[in-house]
Amino acid sequence: MDRLSLQDPLFATYAICAALMILKAVGMSWLTVYRMTKVKSGYRSPEDLRRTRLNPEPDPSQIGPNDYVDRIRRIQLNDLENLPFFLAAGFLFVIAGPSLLHAQILLYGYVVSRLLHFAAYLTAQTHDVRATFWTIGSLMLIYMTLYVLVAALGLV
Amino acid sequence: MDRLSLQDPLFATYAICAALMILKAVGMSWLTVYRMTKVKSGYRSPEDLRRTRLNPEPDPSQIGPNDYVDRIRRIQLNDLENLPFFLAAGFLFVIAGPSLLHAQILLYGYVVSRLLHFAAYLTAQTHDVRATFWTIGSLMLIYMTLYVLVAALGLV
Amino acid sequence: MDRLSLQDPLFATYAICAALMILKAVGMSWLTVYRMTKVKSGYRSPEDLRRTRLNPEPDPSQIGPNDYVDRIRRIQLNDLENLPFFLAAGFLFVIAGPSLLHAQILLYGYVVSRLLHFAAYLTAQTHDVRATFWTIGSLMLIYMTLYVLVAALGLV
Repeated sequence: MDRLSLQDPLFATYAICAALMILKAVGMSWLTVYRMTKVKSGYRSPEDLRRTRLNPEPDPSQIGPNDYVDRIRRIQLNDLENLPFFLAAGFLFVIAGPSLLHAQILLYGYVVSRLLHFAAYLTAQTHDVRATFWTIGSLMLIYMTLYVLVAALGLV
Repeated sequence: MDRLSLQDPLFATYAICAALMILKAVGMSWLTVYRMTKVKSGYRSPEDLRRTRLNPEPDPSQIGPNDYVDRIRRIQLNDLENLPFFLAAGFLFVIAGPSLLHAQILLYGYVVSRLLHFAAYLTAQTHDVRATFWTIGSLMLIYMTLYVLVAALGLV
Repeated sequence: MDRLSLQDPLFATYAICAALMILKAVGMSWLTVYRMTKVKSGYRSPEDLRRTRLNPEPDPSQIGPNDYVDRIRRIQLNDLENLPFFLAAGFLFVIAGPSLLHAQILLYGYVVSRLLHFAAYLTAQTHDVRATFWTIGSLMLIYMTLYVLVAALGLV
């Protein structure tokens, strides 16, 4: 049987979750663009103050902190600190051969935890709420990685 | 047939593009080092102001914003927001089994879009030019990811 | 034979190193949390100043630069600039089929170089020391990537 096939339920579960997380991560870039365009602010490069079709009336205040835009950047940075490692750990985890249910709980669970983290961060919930969702996802990621490590070391 | 073989034209296409993008990303670190060393500025840690063989005459101004160096850091951050997700999406895309031509257009197209984005950013073209190249690459990345998602969900 | 098996010594070597690097990267998030919680500072979002169970006595000084916390963030950013690319390059490298010894030297060597880089950065060694460990790891990463590129291009 071909384990790296989208017809295989285990690998397809990984592929679905990976695709959702990639779209989520890329979505943060688009959301940053949307918010920058909407408020015409939150730019970061000196050349972004040149008069162009998309920025007909440049103003020095367009560069510099803008929490409406920077909030999305913080969310995106949090994605960068987490999602690339999930993409690799999830892949190795399904290669390690857990049961389908085991994989579904962890992979879909991770996706849900990240979407809840996003919702909490976007709406500026307290640090405690945001941290709780982050912690759940991070523990799932650590669990999958340890599962791979133990299997690769031949300890099981 | 072994799909994960560098002798397979489809997988080799992915491997070539992935390798080029990894070299591009790592190249940004080296370019940062080159520029930091050239202007002996743009450092970020307090200990970087200690007198060493590579920094014989430290000066407090060496820490803090320096656009010559920070431009490369902004380019690199843009890479971090995009390339890890391309590496995963491109891999799953070739696993999903597109035609070779289909894969070549998207994978090589993505590489070209990123190199043009780099050239535009490095030479401080207007935001509109840079954004155009970024958008082309990002849409290709989203397309590949949706292709994987649709295939993994069994919708085709 | 199944190359993507944790029973295969070559792939298991990659999986062990990948798992260690994922744990290292995720560990930086936990270390940031530990240090933020210890000094109750180094927060980054406005809402982190709300009174909560984890932050019973909020104070505006809790937001803003804090080198005890920011040092870990700089280490983590360095991880983000390197580890996702190692995870992809190392994977393609073992697919390219080096000898087991060849792979062990490069993959374990990379892990050791990153752990030494971490130790040097955490203890604020001079820039020269930190840069040396980074350079060793980066050259190994470039070597593995070029190995993949040459093989995928059919040059060997």
